[in-house]
Amino acid sequence: MQTRIELLIDLALEEDAPSGDLTSEAIFERGQTSHARIEARESLTVCGLQIAEQVFQRVNPHLSIECFCTDGQQLNSGDVIMRVTGSTIALLTAERTALNFLQRLSGIATLSRRFADAAEASGNAVRIVDTRKTTPGWRALEKYAVRCGGCFNHRSTLSEHVLIKENHILAAGSIAKAVESSRAMAPHTAKIEVETESLDDVKAALAAGAEVIMLDNMSPAKILEAVKLIDSKALIEVSGGVRLETVKDFALPGVDVISVGALTHSAKAADLSMLLEST
Amino acid sequence: MQTRIELLIDLALEEDAPSGDLTSEAIFERGQTSHARIEARESLTVCGLQIAEQVFQRVNPHLSIECFCTDGQQLNSGDVIMRVTGSTIALLTAERTALNFLQRLSGIATLSRRFADAAEASGNAVRIVDTRKTTPGWRALEKYAVRCGGCFNHRSTLSEHVLIKENHILAAGSIAKAVESSRAMAPHTAKIEVETESLDDVKAALAAGAEVIMLDNMSPAKILEAVKLIDSKALIEVSGGVRLETVKDFALPGVDVISVGALTHSAKAADLSMLLEST
Amino acid sequence: MQTRIELLIDLALEEDAPSGDLTSEAIFERGQTSHARIEARESLTVCGLQIAEQVFQRVNPHLSIECFCTDGQQLNSGDVIMRVTGSTIALLTAERTALNFLQRLSGIATLSRRFADAAEASGNAVRIVDTRKTTPGWRALEKYAVRCGGCFNHRSTLSEHVLIKENHILAAGSIAKAVESSRAMAPHTAKIEVETESLDDVKAALAAGAEVIMLDNMSPAKILEAVKLIDSKALIEVSGGVRLETVKDFALPGVDVISVGALTHSAKAADLSMLLEST
Amino acid sequence: MQTRIELLIDLALEEDAPSGDLTSEAIFERGQTSHARIEARESLTVCGLQIAEQVFQRVNPHLSIECFCTDGQQLNSGDVIMRVTGSTIALLTAERTALNFLQRLSGIATLSRRFADAAEASGNAVRIVDTRKTTPGWRALEKYAVRCGGCFNHRSTLSEHVLIKENHILAAGSIAKAVESSRAMAPHTAKIEVETESLDDVKAALAAGAEVIMLDNMSPAKILEAVKLIDSKALIEVSGGVRLETVKDFALPGVDVISVGALTHSAKAADLSMLLEST
Amino acid sequence: MQTRIELLIDLALEEDAPSGDLTSEAIFERGQTSHARIEARESLTVCGLQIAEQVFQRVNPHLSIECFCTDGQQLNSGDVIMRVTGSTIALLTAERTALNFLQRLSGIATLSRRFADAAEASGNAVRIVDTRKTTPGWRALEKYAVRCGGCFNHRSTLSEHVLIKENHILAAGSIAKAVESSRAMAPHTAKIEVETESLDDVKAALAAGAEVIMLDNMSPAKILEAVKLIDSKALIEVSGGVRLETVKDFALPGVDVISVGALTHSAKAADLSMLLEST
Amino acid sequence: MQTRIELLIDLALEEDAPSGDLTSEAIFERGQTSHARIEARESLTVCGLQIAEQVFQRVNPHLSIECFCTDGQQLNSGDVIMRVTGSTIALLTAERTALNFLQRLSGIATLSRRFADAAEASGNAVRIVDTRKTTPGWRALEKYAVRCGGCFNHRSTLSEHVLIKENHILAAGSIAKAVESSRAMAPHTAKIEVETESLDDVKAALAAGAEVIMLDNMSPAKILEAVKLIDSKALIEVSGGVRLETVKDFALPGVDVISVGALTHSAKAADLSMLLEST
Repeated sequence: MQTRIELLIDLALEEDAPSGDLTSEAIFERGQTSHARIEARESLTVCGLQIAEQVFQRVNPHLSIECFCTDGQQLNSGDVIMRVTGSTIALLTAERTALNFLQRLSGIATLSRRFADAAEASGNAVRIVDTRKTTPGWRALEKYAVRCGGCFNHRSTLSEHVLIKENHILAAGSIAKAVESSRAMAPHTAKIEVETESLDDVKAALAAGAEVIMLDNMSPAKILEAVKLIDSKALIEVSGGVRLETVKDFALPGVDVISVGALTHSAKAADLSMLLEST
Repeated sequence: MQTRIELLIDLALEEDAPSGDLTSEAIFERGQTSHARIEARESLTVCGLQIAEQVFQRVNPHLSIECFCTDGQQLNSGDVIMRVTGSTIALLTAERTALNFLQRLSGIATLSRRFADAAEASGNAVRIVDTRKTTPGWRALEKYAVRCGGCFNHRSTLSEHVLIKENHILAAGSIAKAVESSRAMAPHTAKIEVETESLDDVKAALAAGAEVIMLDNMSPAKILEAVKLIDSKALIEVSGGVRLETVKDFALPGVDVISVGALTHSAKAADLSMLLEST
Repeated sequence: MQTRIELLIDLALEEDAPSGDLTSEAIFERGQTSHARIEARESLTVCGLQIAEQVFQRVNPHLSIECFCTDGQQLNSGDVIMRVTGSTIALLTAERTALNFLQRLSGIATLSRRFADAAEASGNAVRIVDTRKTTPGWRALEKYAVRCGGCFNHRSTLSEHVLIKENHILAAGSIAKAVESSRAMAPHTAKIEVETESLDDVKAALAAGAEVIMLDNMSPAKILEAVKLIDSKALIEVSGGVRLETVKDFALPGVDVISVGALTHSAKAADLSMLLEST
Repeated sequence: MQTRIELLIDLALEEDAPSGDLTSEAIFERGQTSHARIEARESLTVCGLQIAEQVFQRVNPHLSIECFCTDGQQLNSGDVIMRVTGSTIALLTAERTALNFLQRLSGIATLSRRFADAAEASGNAVRIVDTRKTTPGWRALEKYAVRCGGCFNHRSTLSEHVLIKENHILAAGSIAKAVESSRAMAPHTAKIEVETESLDDVKAALAAGAEVIMLDNMSPAKILEAVKLIDSKALIEVSGGVRLETVKDFALPGVDVISVGALTHSAKAADLSMLLEST
Repeated sequence: MQTRIELLIDLALEEDAPSGDLTSEAIFERGQTSHARIEARESLTVCGLQIAEQVFQRVNPHLSIECFCTDGQQLNSGDVIMRVTGSTIALLTAERTALNFLQRLSGIATLSRRFADAAEASGNAVRIVDTRKTTPGWRALEKYAVRCGGCFNHRSTLSEHVLIKENHILAAGSIAKAVESSRAMAPHTAKIEVETESLDDVKAALAAGAEVIMLDNMSPAKILEAVKLIDSKALIEVSGGVRLETVKDFALPGVDVISVGALTHSAKAADLSMLLEST
Repeated sequence: MQTRIELLIDLALEEDAPSGDLTSEAIFERGQTSHARIEARESLTVCGLQIAEQVFQRVNPHLSIECFCTDGQQLNSGDVIMRVTGSTIALLTAERTALNFLQRLSGIATLSRRFADAAEASGNAVRIVDTRKTTPGWRALEKYAVRCGGCFNHRSTLSEHVLIKENHILAAGSIAKAVESSRAMAPHTAKIEVETESLDDVKAALAAGAEVIMLDNMSPAKILEAVKLIDSKALIEVSGGVRLETVKDFALPGVDVISVGALTHSAKAADLSMLLEST
């Protein structure tokens, strides 16, 4: 994970300043130093502090950084997130890249926080989980931001969990056969999950011994029936178009997780800025 | 750009399937083939066709791909975007990564299209341009999506254009001195732009010979005054919180460009899906 | 996985021929071609055909390759594995690297085949599985060779399955608490496994709802007691110093998997060679 | 070499913990620290201390490490190799990767030590040397381990020494012509070695001025004849299936080096383990 | 830029010492230390101090380095550039790579200094600028050396400035159309430059509103005519075979920049050496 | 070598066109095609044809390339080197990078050709060889260009040949001891070379059994004495400031090689250009 994050930081700095910051290098002297503080400009759940620090230190290892909060913390507009001191040119060269990381990860954490709160408000013990609909190159970072916002992760990769979908069922001939093939091949450490479209599918998945059953695009009423059928013999995942406003309709008793792609693919950036004070 | 895109594709495939697709490899046979078609599930401006193709071919160079549209094209829900034929396991291993690229780039192109249309509706010759508020690692891709949506690019990097902001002016002592230092150091090929907060700033920038003047967070009325002052002696960029609904208020006669960070940092993913048919 | 394999091939070719093959380039002419055939020189389970092909084609994309067997196939001494035709210099430059991949992967597959046969001979439905004791850089390749030899994989990474060991239990205070913490944090897709040293541990793991119970370094007699206790309520993994000769003592009814580190860390290279015929 | 080792460490950590250690992160708190000690669990020649240190420090630069031995040192079962102190999560995340490097390199050093001892026991000044039959990606590391075990290196790459084999001789027409072509092309810094199958070959190699003559798969009696023929006019390398038990038969007076592929391709892992103590 | 420089350093060290310095490791003991001083052996403008430091510290982070000058400084033969203290083996392993960087960058800075002096001697305010004729992989470093020698940079990349050449004009139909297409597509931040071969071209470029006009291979007399025509309405760049001896003929009043490819593609290495003193 | 060359090409294209060719993309249409021909503009020894081809194909794999000469061939001004056909935008995007490789490598080959001719003119069988004074990142390419110009290579790396210099002799105590240590540690495949400053050094090197003796900065007269002393018992390398004009003074009977750093560090670029014809 460390390697990939360093790689992403390098890509980002390289694409933003392939040969330095023309403006700052023309105007500031090499030795000049400043304080820079990064502030929230709206209410948000902060995330990405460590990666922002890494960005500053990658640009100049002599920058000194003080952090005033921790990932996952709730901030109000005007709250200071971190203060960085050192070479003015370095601060300005790193600024946009550091903010670009922070604003995206905080945006995801903020949206996740809202979903987690909505789930909690239901009074039922249901997790909101992410999906694999993440920004290419950002999987681990975005899944971390989801956790910082109080939600949970679904599988991280195609290689670690069996999720049998409609295509697989068609190919195998039946849910029973698809589960059987999977169990015969997959490591004993992998759970087997089946996506179901109907109560008949649910029954078949249950009979085949699926450890997780996904109820795809079912109405709350249908979900309640499925819950009764499954009767705690498998974990229950609700999936399909659940929005912040409808979480309460799907966070039903017996539902274990609700998966929400929007957590990672449609969160808007959090509003943050960096301000300079000369020293 | 090619190197970075290939790198991003590799990062994406590696993070999604570090050791293959457990489910598909258990259920489908090596030799089995299918057709997969990718469809729009809402009205959108498509973008990222070539990168999606590269994803499929990176997973399996024998996949054959037919494209039914071109980047920047307007699609309706249900329109088929591309059709990929070949190894079923390869198709399913590539699916999510290909869609993750397409949905993000099409999301940006779709939002850009709306902004471009709003600007055009004003009847004035004003460009909507992006900013450097892009997803780290995605700068060139996102700026391409902006162009596919009918908007334009601002500078791509800190290394290619002088943009003098408040911090620089403070450090230099005055707009005049900041412009002078920049002109003395920067390549003769670089334009010099000055960010202004007031009409006095505008006058100073003009006097210093700035080639672009940014009017930051000014009201439409103030902008009109600035336009009159500048009198075509510099390009005029309007910046600061312009939204889709307010474009018409800022796309005033004499304004050359309006920069909008949201194009890249807060576009939501376009809704696309891949469907499999066995062959 | 593709990226990593290409990277490993490049590292290997670079370390073996940083500036070409001095000898062959002095003696053969650029245009000279040969056939090379790779043969088994002992009885073995072949593995790594595709990676060997990739090595040849990386050195020279014009080499043409014919394969006479498939990964996992049983071969006798003298059996021809593949035949490669083209530039003699390219064949000799690629030879050692191609063989180094083949001999290591076939060595692992061959040893795995023996373990799989020994398990099968027990008449009980027990899997032999690998461990994370793999050669750094080779995890996915070696786990693939294990499967080609008829054995199975344990978890591939620390990130995809919970395995609670003694250290974790001490830190958490008890097996119950360790399982509880894990369930609270881990994705719902992850199984939870507990390493046990005694029947008391087994009872605690069972009570905590562990989905897999590892019996570490227990005697066959103790294992039989544990099997009875567990009574199919969790998968049972036997671990600790099981050798080819003792597989039969541990492959007991009720045992689901036996994990064997030696599959990957102590297999000896299979004996293979490449022979050249001029064309 | 540094770059490649760092790359291999990164590959290894990435493949073992692509998104952290699920179990340890669930159970240990971020701030919790421990001592870990790595011990020999059998008699061995240790190798790889520095790379193991690099692994720990790559996972967490704040881990502090104390080493109790040096590469090449002979250890007994129970001897402590190193002690690492710091974040418990970091220690457990690094554990397997650090051990995987140590166990492989120590395995090679241990086997090399046995071969070196066997050669020394012969009373003749003969070196045991490795071959290019190394694990792809590990060339420099494995050759280092061979030296730590008291053996020596053969050429590291195809680019630095001329070794004329049967194929080259056939292509050139004769040993004389092959040597002549090589001398005409190769840098003056490269020695020329000829692989010989018979005493006639030996005579031809000698006449051509070969600086090293390899006696391939010859019996001890034949080797003694060759030694007499060569009469110190070239270095003599014995090659082909020499085992630990037969070293004494081939370490004859006049033989300079015996090359042994098994040193690197068939050493079994040394037995090492890491134990945690809470602080 | 940092990433690329680190990459180049790693490539350089890897290609020079793929498995260490055979000679120094045979002769010096691990713990032995020395002072090494790097000296100018001719009169030169030094450049590359920081990259030389990075080379030493990459080989061994414990080397301590003292620098006696700064990039761009004029040195005489015998002047000490830097003094490095630490492991003798590390010093000798790094020596050639550090010098190879220094000698090339100082060579470029030295030649640039001469051109800058020649331009200054003309008494006219004309900049000597580089071109894109740089050593592949070295663009940013060589452009930095040019600045250290008192010259200036032209555009760094094809992506940041419009330069319309003969081929473009032919394709577009006329200078007017080429400029128009460029203005319609390029970011508003990009200047538009037109290469001209005749005074008619100059008039057309001027009429089209080109911001920079390149006078390609024109005689001094023709240049003076062009200057008059342009009358400060565009920047003027003189290009084509200007040599150190002819700078004075082209550095005419009204000329803004003279571009010289030789600065980067034909500078000879500065003469530097490293001397060791034992400690 | 392939990996490094591809890496260098990618670095070069990335640094020259990080987001495409602004000008060509504005003016040419996507589908437009042209012929481009690369020509010599002075008399030169061409080198780098394959790498230039790789550059074009990296930018666009559909470009078709016809080559009219081979590396090492002598060309006159106006001779056509290659003709590339395809997308005009691709041709112009690749142009500068392809030429930058060709002009540097042809420059080195051209200078080497002159040195080789000068050596040949001496009538004595002496090789001109390169040194390790190469451009960082370009070692293998530049050494290849030297061979294309009819000269030869010295060692490629510090890891493959023992070269004992003054510092090593001081540290070891004497030439005898330095040679002895080297022979005890270095692979039996490595030759041992000693740098000598005096005839006493030469005697000592000879007595120690050095296989190559370097005569450093000796006059022709002194060299002749050394040749007599050495009497063909070691190869003789002359080194130190030999220039094109003085080769004849040093290419004395008995001298085996003359090493010349300038071949790689001070060759000026060959003059080449690319011309476009529309199709």
